[in-house]
Amino acid sequence: MAGNSFGTLFRFTTWGESHGPAIGVVVDGCPSLLDLVAETDIQPWMDKRRPGQSRYTTQRQEPDQVRILSGVFEGKTTGTPISLLIENTDQRSKDYSDIAGKFRPGHADYTYWQKYGIRDYRGGGRSSARETACRVAAGAVARKVLGSAIQVRGALVQVGPHKIDRSRWDWAEIDNNPFFCPDPVAATQWAEYLDGIRKSGSSVGAVVELVASGVPVGLGDPLYDKLDSDLACAMMTINAVKGVEIGNGFAAAELTGEDNADQMRMGPDGQPQFLTNNAGGILGGISTGQDIVVRFAVKPTSSILTPRQTVDTAGNDTDILTKGRHDPCVGIRAVPVGEAMMACVLADHLLRRRAERRE
Amino acid sequence: MAGNSFGTLFRFTTWGESHGPAIGVVVDGCPSLLDLVAETDIQPWMDKRRPGQSRYTTQRQEPDQVRILSGVFEGKTTGTPISLLIENTDQRSKDYSDIAGKFRPGHADYTYWQKYGIRDYRGGGRSSARETACRVAAGAVARKVLGSAIQVRGALVQVGPHKIDRSRWDWAEIDNNPFFCPDPVAATQWAEYLDGIRKSGSSVGAVVELVASGVPVGLGDPLYDKLDSDLACAMMTINAVKGVEIGNGFAAAELTGEDNADQMRMGPDGQPQFLTNNAGGILGGISTGQDIVVRFAVKPTSSILTPRQTVDTAGNDTDILTKGRHDPCVGIRAVPVGEAMMACVLADHLLRRRAERRE
Amino acid sequence: MAGNSFGTLFRFTTWGESHGPAIGVVVDGCPSLLDLVAETDIQPWMDKRRPGQSRYTTQRQEPDQVRILSGVFEGKTTGTPISLLIENTDQRSKDYSDIAGKFRPGHADYTYWQKYGIRDYRGGGRSSARETACRVAAGAVARKVLGSAIQVRGALVQVGPHKIDRSRWDWAEIDNNPFFCPDPVAATQWAEYLDGIRKSGSSVGAVVELVASGVPVGLGDPLYDKLDSDLACAMMTINAVKGVEIGNGFAAAELTGEDNADQMRMGPDGQPQFLTNNAGGILGGISTGQDIVVRFAVKPTSSILTPRQTVDTAGNDTDILTKGRHDPCVGIRAVPVGEAMMACVLADHLLRRRAERRE
Amino acid sequence: MAGNSFGTLFRFTTWGESHGPAIGVVVDGCPSLLDLVAETDIQPWMDKRRPGQSRYTTQRQEPDQVRILSGVFEGKTTGTPISLLIENTDQRSKDYSDIAGKFRPGHADYTYWQKYGIRDYRGGGRSSARETACRVAAGAVARKVLGSAIQVRGALVQVGPHKIDRSRWDWAEIDNNPFFCPDPVAATQWAEYLDGIRKSGSSVGAVVELVASGVPVGLGDPLYDKLDSDLACAMMTINAVKGVEIGNGFAAAELTGEDNADQMRMGPDGQPQFLTNNAGGILGGISTGQDIVVRFAVKPTSSILTPRQTVDTAGNDTDILTKGRHDPCVGIRAVPVGEAMMACVLADHLLRRRAERRE
Repeated sequence: MAGNSFGTLFRFTTWGESHGPAIGVVVDGCPSLLDLVAETDIQPWMDKRRPGQSRYTTQRQEPDQVRILSGVFEGKTTGTPISLLIENTDQRSKDYSDIAGKFRPGHADYTYWQKYGIRDYRGGGRSSARETACRVAAGAVARKVLGSAIQVRGALVQVGPHKIDRSRWDWAEIDNNPFFCPDPVAATQWAEYLDGIRKSGSSVGAVVELVASGVPVGLGDPLYDKLDSDLACAMMTINAVKGVEIGNGFAAAELTGEDNADQMRMGPDGQPQFLTNNAGGILGGISTGQDIVVRFAVKPTSSILTPRQTVDTAGNDTDILTKGRHDPCVGIRAVPVGEAMMACVLADHLLRRRAERRE
Repeated sequence: MAGNSFGTLFRFTTWGESHGPAIGVVVDGCPSLLDLVAETDIQPWMDKRRPGQSRYTTQRQEPDQVRILSGVFEGKTTGTPISLLIENTDQRSKDYSDIAGKFRPGHADYTYWQKYGIRDYRGGGRSSARETACRVAAGAVARKVLGSAIQVRGALVQVGPHKIDRSRWDWAEIDNNPFFCPDPVAATQWAEYLDGIRKSGSSVGAVVELVASGVPVGLGDPLYDKLDSDLACAMMTINAVKGVEIGNGFAAAELTGEDNADQMRMGPDGQPQFLTNNAGGILGGISTGQDIVVRFAVKPTSSILTPRQTVDTAGNDTDILTKGRHDPCVGIRAVPVGEAMMACVLADHLLRRRAERRE
Repeated sequence: MAGNSFGTLFRFTTWGESHGPAIGVVVDGCPSLLDLVAETDIQPWMDKRRPGQSRYTTQRQEPDQVRILSGVFEGKTTGTPISLLIENTDQRSKDYSDIAGKFRPGHADYTYWQKYGIRDYRGGGRSSARETACRVAAGAVARKVLGSAIQVRGALVQVGPHKIDRSRWDWAEIDNNPFFCPDPVAATQWAEYLDGIRKSGSSVGAVVELVASGVPVGLGDPLYDKLDSDLACAMMTINAVKGVEIGNGFAAAELTGEDNADQMRMGPDGQPQFLTNNAGGILGGISTGQDIVVRFAVKPTSSILTPRQTVDTAGNDTDILTKGRHDPCVGIRAVPVGEAMMACVLADHLLRRRAERRE
Repeated sequence: MAGNSFGTLFRFTTWGESHGPAIGVVVDGCPSLLDLVAETDIQPWMDKRRPGQSRYTTQRQEPDQVRILSGVFEGKTTGTPISLLIENTDQRSKDYSDIAGKFRPGHADYTYWQKYGIRDYRGGGRSSARETACRVAAGAVARKVLGSAIQVRGALVQVGPHKIDRSRWDWAEIDNNPFFCPDPVAATQWAEYLDGIRKSGSSVGAVVELVASGVPVGLGDPLYDKLDSDLACAMMTINAVKGVEIGNGFAAAELTGEDNADQMRMGPDGQPQFLTNNAGGILGGISTGQDIVVRFAVKPTSSILTPRQTVDTAGNDTDILTKGRHDPCVGIRAVPVGEAMMACVLADHLLRRRAERRE
């Protein structure tokens, strides 16, 4: 049934298959009078996710140029739905002809087939990571809603077994390497490691960390639209994501109450301050005013050059080897996608929070 | 704003504070003609979560007796909303009088205060784990929807730093110890470990694992109502949960595509079979027909007997020591709560799946 | 499937059958810090709808005393769900024993039976007008959200073929007769007319008019959550309602563009003013700042003392005569119910409007 | 806030302004494996609504050619969102240059301005009836869901003060005149009447009647997603609609219970039958299995050639005369739009009904 919309007040709906004529997103609920220009406000974020920019991501070449079809008048949002369209230009359907009847392990081929009884087998169709371009476009609009005071940033903090050294974290490094890696030493190691993965036709998983700063206290609607539950949902909708955590996350399981709870003191500005941020900026499902910290795990790309055992739609055992253009580490491009989803969740809750303001 | 409902077709709404006269849940969308009797169909699950049953959980004594106020006629569901009410009997409001003006670290006191400008300070009010009794009641109804073919079970797999040995996993052990632990050796170790935690007035985190078996292929609605994103959301709404993962979860980040993707072969019954279940029973957001495997991390109980630094509503630095009756490891009682939430998610998606059946 | 909730940001969920132990409503999304006391803020509206107050309404005696079970602390709303419970005291199930297997014409007996395969036949069960007590309770909370500046009032403007004379409209007359009639002359005529209807065991339809004043411009969310579409939906959910119109309504079909469109002039206060209100205060689905005017038609009570042809659940032709206590004109008690629904729609849109306010 | 989606399981989202590059609709929740071809399955319905086909509708010339951008593979629906796009070709923005700063009486200009603080003044922007082309496209998809057994038809039954003679009702006449009029005599009268209206630059209102046949018993979800409340909502979202009624509608107010309730008898096929259909095929919010009958009133087109008093955005009194191309009776083209909305409501409830089927 219908499941292609996300959000409540700031709500987007995506559509499109990887090998159809276009993909797109309709953003509904964006407030009016925000400046929104495709070239300057949306395209830069698209470019960040765009494939083919380094040898560590798929070589599919898509300009990912966004067109605004509605909801903007003379450079400003009008409060009506914003329709964004991205044409598919590099479709190469022929690459996929040999997998039309086979279920690629780790992909959604089998489940789509079973659920719908039909499948657009060209490159994953709807389940392709290509759809995430729409999320990034929606996220760019969400950032306009958040304004300049709220900043959403993401980083890759682990590639395969290799984690960053957090003592070297430097946001400025993010743009200096093709991995969105905040640790320049790790970035160098990853480059070598991923070259090996790429050349062997293999793939590897990764962990992304997102941080939102400037988020005011009070966002989140307990008990079932909590800020953290909405963030967990958002991240888990991203292709290949298998785990999500907030603040200390799974590490909190090993801690005692003395170590985990964030103590408070009045700050020099006369406002309550937390002395630590183990909670990742969320208590009881509501933002505390601290940085919101989310991490999510991305599984290794399922398309690899080593033949794997599978079956076909006719019920025969067979092997498959995915020859298409793919990412050795799909987690890299998940960084801007995660950022976009976080921005959308925050924009939604920011509007929800406004609704409850006392006059 | 409104955030106290969960689900779409199978939908529940909870209400109530820990120290009000009662708590309750309205279950809407339950199909008609299911047998539903409070004593036999709901109460056993309530008893599993009920506090005061061992020295490892809070000593608050609540019979947690559920009354069915609507939606059932002559022992069968009628398709109309099922209202379930649980009276609060052991409220002891006086225990909380000294914390009325202080924000307990790790609790939602500060964020509720900031968000709503008012707070029912008696025992956490709405943010108390007491509300989870309503989830268990809803989950009991969800299990009737799932029927006997779909089974949802949970286990505690880690307490503090102590994990179970998976080679000893035995579901039959779950009921033989007060921890829902499937490993009898670990259970013995935990007993000793948690005695120490309890006596020192401390607390510790834990990890819960849920397994749903018998789930048919095809449940889940990509791309934003995926089965895994809904499960992640569900788990993250539970008090104190800080992380969720599906199948291999975060461990998938360290794997290669060769190791992580589940290969397939035709089974002896002529049906496609997966050779492994790294995916945790979900591909592309849709159930594969295998066991659904979810894990979530629970932070240590924030109420501890060691004084912690905090501030009060008047803006003064102060210390706080939470003397009330509390759980040394709130993760234990999170097991039946997690099961209930999983059952509700599955019931919802089972009904959604029915809607798309071809005639 | 689930269908017992109404509203988005201000959202209520009702439950309960006419002859169960109780009925109730959970109001979610009510802002915090509003004064709310059962006796003074809710009960007066309940009493207005309460049956048995004149010979023109059912003689069922229900005190309809509302209990607040959650969401209020020390007399103020806390922002958490407000659970309101009303016990059923005068159930007299025996009155309905002879209709258990027969479908009462005009009632929902047949459709509930077909839809759910089971039916609580005692007095209509869920489809009974008794449920509207919950709506009135929710409406009382909605009025607190609207505040004193927004006023929602209703009147009966037609009983059977007898309409009021609009030139005699006086809101002060509403409380001077048992019909909520603003025309004292019509009220006298209706009393005589309805006495005849009542004595003959018959029933008659009616038309209710609702007026909301003080509504600010800008409420309503085109194109599918328009203020008028939400109002139309709200009214049509009320038992026995068969038609809804806004402003000129069906009469607009007979007018020309010159006569129907409301012209504007700048007012003495320097604000734009409409010279007429044919639109009923809504243009393009958005409130204009004028009075919102809604009318709805209520069909005659289906329970009458004249035998009618029907069938039974065993598939036999039979006749039925409904002996229970019923309203000769159910439209009378629909006035406070319509008011409540209008208040809920406006409260929801008022909160929605706040969400889009520019900082 | 977000308000541009309609439906729950069968759900569509529209976007686009009358004078932007295109308009469109995303249909989510359409089951898979339905045949869907733009030219044969959608276009004929578009053509029915398309302007410029007679002198009684606007002379705007739009081919309204629909492109399917997603959700269909090899001529069949895939269960993924169906994106339909219609380019705006005849935009003539210059026609509207003189009304940029004036509020046209009866239009949504003033309310959009107040709500959003900005307005796409070219031809009504989002509030233009042009958007209804998207509804018709969605309705064409809905008809595929309904299948051939369920038929949705509409007719114009009143133009200004001139009603049809119901004894002459002949569905075959609908396509024989430019009014969708089932009474050939009335059609002739209307032609003459509307010629006068058109030549004088005036406009007039109308009433549309919709009939759905073949609808199974059991559709509709009491108490707040009733079939009739959803239909009322749907019709009231259509531009210029001011009233909706089901079955006898407002006429029911004048009837007695003896006359209004539909009696039953066992039919020759051994199934219960209703002897009349005063209820319009809905009892208690659930379909009875009879024809569903809905009527709605459309106000006269607000754009007329007679100058009307208004104000401008600068706060000055002014007059306005709308010179653009407009419909003398917008109610005519509301017929296929109403049909489409009814088809969408029924498709949604048909899917919802499937979800509750017992195995």
